[in-house]
Amino acid sequence: MNVNFAERAHNHNWKLDPIVRSLLDTDFYKLLMLQFIWKNFPNVPVTSEIHNRTIKVRLADRIGAQALRDQMEHVRGLRLRKSELVWLAGNTFYGVRQIFSPAFLEWLERDFRLSDYTITEADGQLIVRFSGLWTEVTMWEVYALAIVSEMKTRSALSTLNELELDVLYARAKTRLWDKIEKLQHVEGLRLSDFGTRRRHSFLWQEYCVQALKATLNHGRGATDSPGEERFTGTSNTALAYKHDLEAIGTNAHELQMAMAAMASRGSDDELRASQYKVLELWQQSYGGALLIMLPDTFGTTQFLDNAPAWVANWTGERVDSKDPFEAGDEYIAWLLKRGQDPRAKRLIASDGLDADTIVKLHDYFRNRIRFSAGWGTLLTNDFRDCHPRGEDTLEPISLVCKVTSADGIPTVKLSDNPSKSTGPANYIARYRRVFGSPVLEETPVLV
Amino acid sequence: MNVNFAERAHNHNWKLDPIVRSLLDTDFYKLLMLQFIWKNFPNVPVTSEIHNRTIKVRLADRIGAQALRDQMEHVRGLRLRKSELVWLAGNTFYGVRQIFSPAFLEWLERDFRLSDYTITEADGQLIVRFSGLWTEVTMWEVYALAIVSEMKTRSALSTLNELELDVLYARAKTRLWDKIEKLQHVEGLRLSDFGTRRRHSFLWQEYCVQALKATLNHGRGATDSPGEERFTGTSNTALAYKHDLEAIGTNAHELQMAMAAMASRGSDDELRASQYKVLELWQQSYGGALLIMLPDTFGTTQFLDNAPAWVANWTGERVDSKDPFEAGDEYIAWLLKRGQDPRAKRLIASDGLDADTIVKLHDYFRNRIRFSAGWGTLLTNDFRDCHPRGEDTLEPISLVCKVTSADGIPTVKLSDNPSKSTGPANYIARYRRVFGSPVLEETPVLV
Repeated sequence: MNVNFAERAHNHNWKLDPIVRSLLDTDFYKLLMLQFIWKNFPNVPVTSEIHNRTIKVRLADRIGAQALRDQMEHVRGLRLRKSELVWLAGNTFYGVRQIFSPAFLEWLERDFRLSDYTITEADGQLIVRFSGLWTEVTMWEVYALAIVSEMKTRSALSTLNELELDVLYARAKTRLWDKIEKLQHVEGLRLSDFGTRRRHSFLWQEYCVQALKATLNHGRGATDSPGEERFTGTSNTALAYKHDLEAIGTNAHELQMAMAAMASRGSDDELRASQYKVLELWQQSYGGALLIMLPDTFGTTQFLDNAPAWVANWTGERVDSKDPFEAGDEYIAWLLKRGQDPRAKRLIASDGLDADTIVKLHDYFRNRIRFSAGWGTLLTNDFRDCHPRGEDTLEPISLVCKVTSADGIPTVKLSDNPSKSTGPANYIARYRRVFGSPVLEETPVLV
Repeated sequence: MNVNFAERAHNHNWKLDPIVRSLLDTDFYKLLMLQFIWKNFPNVPVTSEIHNRTIKVRLADRIGAQALRDQMEHVRGLRLRKSELVWLAGNTFYGVRQIFSPAFLEWLERDFRLSDYTITEADGQLIVRFSGLWTEVTMWEVYALAIVSEMKTRSALSTLNELELDVLYARAKTRLWDKIEKLQHVEGLRLSDFGTRRRHSFLWQEYCVQALKATLNHGRGATDSPGEERFTGTSNTALAYKHDLEAIGTNAHELQMAMAAMASRGSDDELRASQYKVLELWQQSYGGALLIMLPDTFGTTQFLDNAPAWVANWTGERVDSKDPFEAGDEYIAWLLKRGQDPRAKRLIASDGLDADTIVKLHDYFRNRIRFSAGWGTLLTNDFRDCHPRGEDTLEPISLVCKVTSADGIPTVKLSDNPSKSTGPANYIARYRRVFGSPVLEETPVLV
């Protein structure tokens, strides 16, 4: 009787089920970085590339190049909607109004475009290479990663029948809720969703975010300050917009890598100084809670040891490739040595976190520094052991998109974990000489 | 765009969401017993009563008497649909065609009605009493139990928000699938759904049945005979009809209790003989796989010890109140003593089973007797520890509907578990004298 004939016919006839449906469906830091690049480096050409660090997973066997192109072309056809632009212009981000300048938003509306790219296959992997102006290339990172990640999901889902799909999601939901129960009563907890790029799917990320919002920011402990929500927000700008959440994130290795590459034309001193030059330029555009440094691009210890005095005034540090307990201790000791009160600073961990580690980190740093967790892949894509037939096709992989050259010069990342180093060997050698990064123990990368 | 306006308006305006939507939504044995009663006892008046053995759960606080009456009156207004009658007439049950006589089906179509009843409250419990001809009262058992059970569910669900409901079902599904995984590879397993009366809801029972059908009867082990499905069917006639499954079940204590009550007007010998008289009458109507005796009404041991020789020719035994391992051993020994091959007989366990016990029983009786499991409440209503706020409102309770008098005489059930005894004390005393049932250790009743 109540058949929706139009919907049913439509459901059988659509040509593309888009993965990215809004230009806001990206990490907020990409927008901050885009404005930074637009302002400081509008004419620099760069290249970037998607790289699957989980080589045993042969992505090209699961994802068709043409289907990937269709999804990417869909994103290229997107424009910011009027209401999205109004929100970017009028919303308060990190407590600041008009974080995006009118000129930038005008450019974003009228002139922003995504660069060209090529898709090739090698050794069962898809090689996606982007090339163009930095402003055209940078935004591809999150769109393309989220697309590849969800296409991998769809490929796995396509082999499951209706009942098996139901088992799968029941298990993943049960897993998520078990994690939430661990976090629900942790006093003073602060965590946010950092899981856009490697999410199972957009809808699953949205489910996770809604679940966290409903449970962690509801019935908070009596000792929590009002307004101090435990779920502080999401890195996903579209979800922040849609669900009235804070958009979270500041900047990434990309800036350090590209500016180091450009500086590497000059002397070793200029190369070494580039890592602080990024901070100098950043604080010309942003302030307060957005002054979060990411010191591990060429090794954390040398970054802190050699930092100019003013760097200690920054608001906090994001730990990525180093063990977060160690990195936090190191940052606290460094702040004390520089006469800063760590309890006024923020420490953000964001690498491969899961609920148990988040609770441990929170406890470890309680009353020592303001700890926040950026919960990524194991929030939005933890389907380990959920597959109804026991296959591993839905397990997350370590997929990254890294800038490979800036202004024609190859980029390098050393990081605190040698298994995360990138760049041509001779360039890495020079960087190691310049930054003197010790080779830490190699840690296997899960996600 | 694709809003179904009619559906949305309708969803806000319905007056009753019926729990029982077809007269077939009952255990198949009720139909077999109904024909038996219609044929042999068309004019006997009986009374029956719903009793909640889990007294700590105050049902009257959760279920409104008027809402219960509305649901029950809805059932009273139901008639068998033409297609349902054609199916009852034309389908093969237990390998037999025309198990229901044309005269019975004609009566069922034209003259069947459900008796009057009263609903009162006492000590937080709802007392539902049925009174009328046996043919009018008997069918209430499963309809009324399923209604009360689902109304209890709905009362608990009404306090949960959308997200909490989602958690709840994700957990219950994960639980179900974990159980199915335990059963999935058990060679030669035979189990059926016996969970209608205490189900969480009709739709959940249907989900469980579909899950078992899809997983246990699909990709069966190579050693299983073709046609020997591991999920042998469901006691729920509506689900058997809807999903092309075997309808499972034979008879219940009700027959023994009512015939004993009527015989109790006479001598102790007549009372004692009544338990075999049921079998005599039953085998006039049914044969083969339907010759499953239920020996525990007044104690299993006395039943077997005193049984006439022909009783050993019956096809099998259903164990209800006795420990099924012990009861199976006892039945096997009894069969051997009577010159029967137990490997040609069937043993059905149906009391409080869950996946682990089913596997243990299956292993225990393998190659000794044909074991089948009737999986009830812990299949269709295992929401223990699934409540998103940790409440116990969705845990199953031990709800029964028992015949309390036949032809004006109170009925008695002794059973093998004294906590399941029913009847007035002085009647129980006489029955204990007559049947000499030993008082076994009292076993707490979970479901």
